[in-house]
Amino acid sequence: MGAMSTPAWVSDTAFYQIFPDRFRRAGQSSHPQPSGPFEPWDAPPTVRGFKGGDLWGVAEKLDYLAELGVGAIYLNPVFASTANHRYHTTDYFQVDPVLGGNAALRHLLDAAHNRGLRVILDGVFNHTGRGFFAFAHLLENGPDSPYRDWYHVKGYPLHAYGGAPNYEAWWGNPELPKLRVETPAVRAYLLEVAEYWIRFGADGWRLDVPEEIDDMDFWAEFRARVKAANPEAYLVGEIWHEAAGWTAPDGPFDGLMNYPLGRGILGLLGVNAQGRALAARSGLGELPDLDGAAWLGWTKKVLEAYPEEVRRAQLNLITSHDTPRLISMLGGEARRAALALELLTVLPGSPSLYYGDEIGLEGGHEPDNRRAFPWERPERWKREVLERVRAALRRRSAASGLGSVAFAPRGASGRRAAFERGSGTDRLLVVVNAEEAPWRLELPASEGERWRALEGEGRLEVRDGRLVGAEVPPLTLQIWAPAP
Amino acid sequence: MGAMSTPAWVSDTAFYQIFPDRFRRAGQSSHPQPSGPFEPWDAPPTVRGFKGGDLWGVAEKLDYLAELGVGAIYLNPVFASTANHRYHTTDYFQVDPVLGGNAALRHLLDAAHNRGLRVILDGVFNHTGRGFFAFAHLLENGPDSPYRDWYHVKGYPLHAYGGAPNYEAWWGNPELPKLRVETPAVRAYLLEVAEYWIRFGADGWRLDVPEEIDDMDFWAEFRARVKAANPEAYLVGEIWHEAAGWTAPDGPFDGLMNYPLGRGILGLLGVNAQGRALAARSGLGELPDLDGAAWLGWTKKVLEAYPEEVRRAQLNLITSHDTPRLISMLGGEARRAALALELLTVLPGSPSLYYGDEIGLEGGHEPDNRRAFPWERPERWKREVLERVRAALRRRSAASGLGSVAFAPRGASGRRAAFERGSGTDRLLVVVNAEEAPWRLELPASEGERWRALEGEGRLEVRDGRLVGAEVPPLTLQIWAPAP
Repeated sequence: MGAMSTPAWVSDTAFYQIFPDRFRRAGQSSHPQPSGPFEPWDAPPTVRGFKGGDLWGVAEKLDYLAELGVGAIYLNPVFASTANHRYHTTDYFQVDPVLGGNAALRHLLDAAHNRGLRVILDGVFNHTGRGFFAFAHLLENGPDSPYRDWYHVKGYPLHAYGGAPNYEAWWGNPELPKLRVETPAVRAYLLEVAEYWIRFGADGWRLDVPEEIDDMDFWAEFRARVKAANPEAYLVGEIWHEAAGWTAPDGPFDGLMNYPLGRGILGLLGVNAQGRALAARSGLGELPDLDGAAWLGWTKKVLEAYPEEVRRAQLNLITSHDTPRLISMLGGEARRAALALELLTVLPGSPSLYYGDEIGLEGGHEPDNRRAFPWERPERWKREVLERVRAALRRRSAASGLGSVAFAPRGASGRRAAFERGSGTDRLLVVVNAEEAPWRLELPASEGERWRALEGEGRLEVRDGRLVGAEVPPLTLQIWAPAP
Repeated sequence: MGAMSTPAWVSDTAFYQIFPDRFRRAGQSSHPQPSGPFEPWDAPPTVRGFKGGDLWGVAEKLDYLAELGVGAIYLNPVFASTANHRYHTTDYFQVDPVLGGNAALRHLLDAAHNRGLRVILDGVFNHTGRGFFAFAHLLENGPDSPYRDWYHVKGYPLHAYGGAPNYEAWWGNPELPKLRVETPAVRAYLLEVAEYWIRFGADGWRLDVPEEIDDMDFWAEFRARVKAANPEAYLVGEIWHEAAGWTAPDGPFDGLMNYPLGRGILGLLGVNAQGRALAARSGLGELPDLDGAAWLGWTKKVLEAYPEEVRRAQLNLITSHDTPRLISMLGGEARRAALALELLTVLPGSPSLYYGDEIGLEGGHEPDNRRAFPWERPERWKREVLERVRAALRRRSAASGLGSVAFAPRGASGRRAAFERGSGTDRLLVVVNAEEAPWRLELPASEGERWRALEGEGRLEVRDGRLVGAEVPPLTLQIWAPAP
């Protein structure tokens, strides 16, 4: 797999994750679709309810995303499904009619590409919904179905809607029968899906629970088919732990969803007991508690678990549809949420924002973490978060050092840390203060180093072997560039 | 509805009904599909089994159909389905992948149209399969589903796979939940399906159990949408009895499946006890037993139940996927099967052959009446039937009188009947002998009438006020044209 390198665009791009049922409803569809009744947009989300967001709605908000500084969208699943999160696929070749059907995705891709925005899709290939046509076929026809080798069946008739499932299912959930990927027709089907949507215009795949498909030959073929269709396509795996075997040069993915890096950021920010309890109910698990020095070590280790090529292409994130909301883990404090996201933008790899975190949208455990975006309730937006995230993303695309893979710790004090990014004239010094008090900067210095503020005034200089000259306000970070 | 007239092409066209799983397998598909395992092609059909026939296969046999003299194909359902007969629809916008997907229908329509053959589809709009995406959605989400008004639900959770269904279903069959056509989104969906496939290139719809949708406004809209898309599209309803309210000028259909006419033909041919028992298990019910005079009366009544415009556009058939095989009702006798089909071709309306009847394919009760076409077993073909059907269809398209609506009884004797078709120079005299003995023709004559054999030699003349001059061999018919 090594011959196909990771796409260069990823490290220059900030991602924005959209949960389509909750982002924006335009109410269009290529085919007649239920116009509801949907749940009220602003009501708390329920496990089974639909709010009717659609892809035409996403397309309406590309201006917002471009202004925010986003370069790519990661869409949660969009194919026909019986679930509001659409992880219960019923047809991989059809965009869900409630989302607007295939025509809506066509429109969104075209509109995004016209602005230079990319779009990656969520590939859920380990299991289908029990409403998937092949499973429904098997449910109806039993061993007479030509789909009989598509699943791991232990007996007929299938017990899919009552009693314990007599077939392999994801975590034993009867709603999600596991596909039998070793069956040639299943393999061919999934690989065609993978290629089809890339040729349709998708810019890559986020792969759901890829470790459950314990078949590296499948994944190697998957990568080969996708990269043959578009060498610039981005493949990112949903693996929550360090797993260098799954990434380039020998593994199938360009990068992983870098939850370990995000957990480190939460660890530095300091999450209170309530936030820790929320996190513990999600895949984030027990959060670490890190002072600046520990955080530098944590982050360095997370980065260096992968070769440089992969470090560039990691999808760095703190939150997603599978975690509590950022601000809700941070005691509702806009300043902390803003700093967390700023920090995400100054690390190697590509930052990924979960829709709404940039306006401080709150939410606890699933499904509360999937609230609808309050477009019509601007009074609920945390403007400080939005403005700081916008500025951070603008800075990130302007300062090439932030797109590099270099990360060199320079010192720490309490929940404060300093590190360098880039090299040569691209070098940058980042100083982060996660404390409530200002940080009068003082770091061990190299002979003759001099820095100027990346934006605005200010200088750092060496005095008595210490780099000094700045005061970093509470819960902010600063970036410094080499001074002439 | 009267403004849109019935399409003229129908009365000039012989139809050929194809049950796609059983006609011909090419093994191609636009997307990867199960390559089986399928049942052996020549093994007796089972209720749930698949033989893997596909639309690419149908396209391979267009030469055969053209040579047979067929001008249109009526395809049993082709949309994604969990059943081998595909009446359990799972997606009306997708041709079943096992049939080759939408690309296969595209290919078949193009190939057929290039030869001047038309293709009509089977529209099953009263109910869906329980694997239909909207029903699966409701099954999964209950009242939280935006599809909650798509069916007639009596309680949640739905009992679809165990216990009595708590929703309306076709004949109480839980596999076939009845759609709620008064819901605007359902109505819009079905009407879009109707229009979509006509615009795609289908030449009409055969409508399954239309009386179950007791909503003439729906059907009026249906007709208007289809005819707006293609004024030449043919709409034929599956109604087994006389039902002039369902046809033009005030009803929605151009014609009906004319089972009453076919039952009359069986009545004249004389069906033995075994054949009658077979028929009685199907929708054909108790067959009449008709001598020539009774048959003429029966047929005249069946024809005259409709205005002339409709008589021209009736789909005349004896057998279908819902009846036993023709030859199996006729004691396995090729001569009787041939005569029955010949007779079908000389009556007003459009003859429709059920695939395989033309080679004397046998079959009793469902599913035995859906055997695979024995392309590779020509020794099983009843050549006499094939040759006589071919000749009859050739004759029908050559003799314009046979495409008229005129039908005038001329006399009868035992299971023998004579009638005139056409008018003026197109006039034809048809004499049918359904007895085992030759018929020395002798009919009451008009002054001075003279006839010549339509094909070959021979004359009929008036002697002593009687029309004489022919001997009609057992189980054959003859056609005579006015002599100069």
